[in-house]
Amino acid sequence: MTSNQPPLWRRAVAELVGTSLLVMIVVGSGIAAQQLSPNDIGLQLLQNSTATVLGLTVLILVFGPVSGAHFNPAVSLVDWILGRRNGTGLTLPELGTYAVAQALGAVSGSVVANAMFEVETSISVKDRATLGHLLGEVVATAGLILLIFTLAATKRGVLAAPAVGAYIGAAYWFTSSTSFANPAVTVGRIFSDTFAGIAPASVPGFVVAQLVGAAAGLGLLLILFPAAARTADDVVLPHDSAKTSS
Amino acid sequence: MTSNQPPLWRRAVAELVGTSLLVMIVVGSGIAAQQLSPNDIGLQLLQNSTATVLGLTVLILVFGPVSGAHFNPAVSLVDWILGRRNGTGLTLPELGTYAVAQALGAVSGSVVANAMFEVETSISVKDRATLGHLLGEVVATAGLILLIFTLAATKRGVLAAPAVGAYIGAAYWFTSSTSFANPAVTVGRIFSDTFAGIAPASVPGFVVAQLVGAAAGLGLLLILFPAAARTADDVVLPHDSAKTSS
Amino acid sequence: MTSNQPPLWRRAVAELVGTSLLVMIVVGSGIAAQQLSPNDIGLQLLQNSTATVLGLTVLILVFGPVSGAHFNPAVSLVDWILGRRNGTGLTLPELGTYAVAQALGAVSGSVVANAMFEVETSISVKDRATLGHLLGEVVATAGLILLIFTLAATKRGVLAAPAVGAYIGAAYWFTSSTSFANPAVTVGRIFSDTFAGIAPASVPGFVVAQLVGAAAGLGLLLILFPAAARTADDVVLPHDSAKTSS
Amino acid sequence: MTSNQPPLWRRAVAELVGTSLLVMIVVGSGIAAQQLSPNDIGLQLLQNSTATVLGLTVLILVFGPVSGAHFNPAVSLVDWILGRRNGTGLTLPELGTYAVAQALGAVSGSVVANAMFEVETSISVKDRATLGHLLGEVVATAGLILLIFTLAATKRGVLAAPAVGAYIGAAYWFTSSTSFANPAVTVGRIFSDTFAGIAPASVPGFVVAQLVGAAAGLGLLLILFPAAARTADDVVLPHDSAKTSS
Repeated sequence: MTSNQPPLWRRAVAELVGTSLLVMIVVGSGIAAQQLSPNDIGLQLLQNSTATVLGLTVLILVFGPVSGAHFNPAVSLVDWILGRRNGTGLTLPELGTYAVAQALGAVSGSVVANAMFEVETSISVKDRATLGHLLGEVVATAGLILLIFTLAATKRGVLAAPAVGAYIGAAYWFTSSTSFANPAVTVGRIFSDTFAGIAPASVPGFVVAQLVGAAAGLGLLLILFPAAARTADDVVLPHDSAKTSS
Repeated sequence: MTSNQPPLWRRAVAELVGTSLLVMIVVGSGIAAQQLSPNDIGLQLLQNSTATVLGLTVLILVFGPVSGAHFNPAVSLVDWILGRRNGTGLTLPELGTYAVAQALGAVSGSVVANAMFEVETSISVKDRATLGHLLGEVVATAGLILLIFTLAATKRGVLAAPAVGAYIGAAYWFTSSTSFANPAVTVGRIFSDTFAGIAPASVPGFVVAQLVGAAAGLGLLLILFPAAARTADDVVLPHDSAKTSS
Repeated sequence: MTSNQPPLWRRAVAELVGTSLLVMIVVGSGIAAQQLSPNDIGLQLLQNSTATVLGLTVLILVFGPVSGAHFNPAVSLVDWILGRRNGTGLTLPELGTYAVAQALGAVSGSVVANAMFEVETSISVKDRATLGHLLGEVVATAGLILLIFTLAATKRGVLAAPAVGAYIGAAYWFTSSTSFANPAVTVGRIFSDTFAGIAPASVPGFVVAQLVGAAAGLGLLLILFPAAARTADDVVLPHDSAKTSS
Repeated sequence: MTSNQPPLWRRAVAELVGTSLLVMIVVGSGIAAQQLSPNDIGLQLLQNSTATVLGLTVLILVFGPVSGAHFNPAVSLVDWILGRRNGTGLTLPELGTYAVAQALGAVSGSVVANAMFEVETSISVKDRATLGHLLGEVVATAGLILLIFTLAATKRGVLAAPAVGAYIGAAYWFTSSTSFANPAVTVGRIFSDTFAGIAPASVPGFVVAQLVGAAAGLGLLLILFPAAARTADDVVLPHDSAKTSS
């Protein structure tokens, strides 16, 4: 953690607004897809995934210099774990703050998406927790963690925005679960009974699978890039431009 | 504003031609989509948004070195507001010139698009001003302003072309209004009674919502990047190459 | 023209093979689209344009260091015109060599595409020369010329690959003619009576419209970037890496 | 081969996991497409190719610094051939190790994809070996080899990730065979009787065509870039960041 990092309250705002916009993108484009292409679920998913690739890339560009653009408690958790080894990364209280901001943001994103499309906010009834989907979440989250922290470990944090966007866009399709890969977003998606929704009963299984995937991704990272633990702070502040925000 | 900026008349030409091409892309690809995929509105929007992502990115690359590639009075307005704080950015007469050029360009873009597709130029009858859509315009414009001026504030203006293209591509889908987010383009789209058209009665509401969104985006920018006001001139001249155009 | 440029025969091979692959991409993906999505012409065009965006970008990356990756007599012609002003760019004999290589490549690309899809090579019967389509070709070619030589004039030739790919991808949709914008490719597309084909009777009109568009694009370039004439050689050899090819 | 390259066992892990994820992407997104868009094979291929463009780009970013991210015995073979001329590139035992890791990874990728989608792992019955498809494989592999080693020869290895992703995305469409272009992936795709599967009887023809294509691509490379043989090691270690992984 460098000394010219933005204050925690500002980073929490960035995580909250960024995660809110991320869920707005996922849920909102899902509603649009469902309304405009009612006859082909695959086409709906293509519209949903295309919007997410583009939107997530932009969100990481915008909020990265402030908070690192985690938008995801699994990412913040791994950042904390890696940082403990070498005194960088998030501290435990910061991790807690990030996670709360992400969860609040995620829920608000669903609510605003519903309002934009004049759909009532209600609890999703879409059961998603099959064995295949849980395996999908393990794979999706492992890949996401491996990607983000590989880029940090190899000093390529500047590529995180398009790379994470592209990864999620692929994972929508190659994992059976359409790649939630994010506990906060999973919780936020409870609050829209539309294309991207998830029933509350499916959430615990998804979150556990995501944590297992995060652990697997972290293990693979340490096998492939043993130096990763020494460079974790690159995730939080991926480029010099962050200095202009203080 | 640097001293080696192109003269105002040349910048006005760039804003006029660039905005004309932008509306040509939005309206023209909308007509093509409607004609070629008559049975699925979502597929039409996917074709329309894909063409816009690619085309808008290119337009910003081409016209950015001359005029900053605003193509949007809301962007020029915020540039003027931010510039007043530190003596950079557009002056008020320049703002007026930009806005007039953008509006003329937008209308001409609709007319040329209609001509290419041999569709008569007529006033759109597509009512769009619902409460949900107005909220959509607020969100869309807030995000656009936050993105553009964040990139300027963090010295990443070179990323504006692909990032703004990607943002609009996502916002076509995640906002209910398909993200006009631009008063000049909104006016231009009156003049084509096709996929991308908008009825005149819906325009005032859309423009007001866009201005509210611009204010919200500016507010969020100043919370996240307090240094933004000191770097606004990067928007007008995003890279050194501009010097070759004088 | 720098002294460490590859010999003309090698540049001609690059133009021939590159243009052949370009037409293979356009014609081949058109046949695939027609066979796999028979019920929606718009979806066919989306598949065709998506393949072209990706493929053309790659071709410019590969052949750019050798020949400048023109693949288009209109581009070579403008390069020659701009170069005459300052002694750079193609010479007249080189222009002739480029154009012949491009035309031969284009025809061969159609033939190979037909062979891959086991479609007989025959002359297209698809009439395309309407007034609207001719206007489309003027707009499409003007934009292409403006883009390519703006990037050269502003020392951003390294962006040509993704930018030209993106431009053509947008122009497939926003021009009514699906943006041929290239006399050699237009001739090549005669030789496949499939999705991307064009009847011989439509070719002269298209080529004239393309030349008019090239002139319009050149005029606009000189208005916006008066310095363009002094930097045209950047188009032929867009980056230093070309030196490794000698 | 530089002295600070990762040990062979770690590079083999990277090739195995990377190739496994590549096949997971190809096969998994194929299954998703087939299930979600049952009525349009072209739309299925668009979903499949879009996921592959995005996913393959990310995989090369992640595994490139460790092993060079070949994921393809044809690429490793050409790397060895080029390296023999100048004492760089893979050695013969390394080539064998890479190929075995790639094949094991490819098979495991099919198995995991099947498991995620709760589809039984079984041998594909999809015959693909027509004359047109074999010509498609020759073209596809020639283009791939030319692209990868051109980027290396011109010191642009950093572009390999998006460029190879884009190339394969185009080649899905412009070659009749949907561009396998990879012997290991071809073998892996035997083990899923779904959209992306291939019957064992078609595999030998495909692999022979791929080797012929690799030879053609290598020949074209040496015509266009005679210096290529001296720079082959750039493929294995495309950027300095690899040093952080040791």
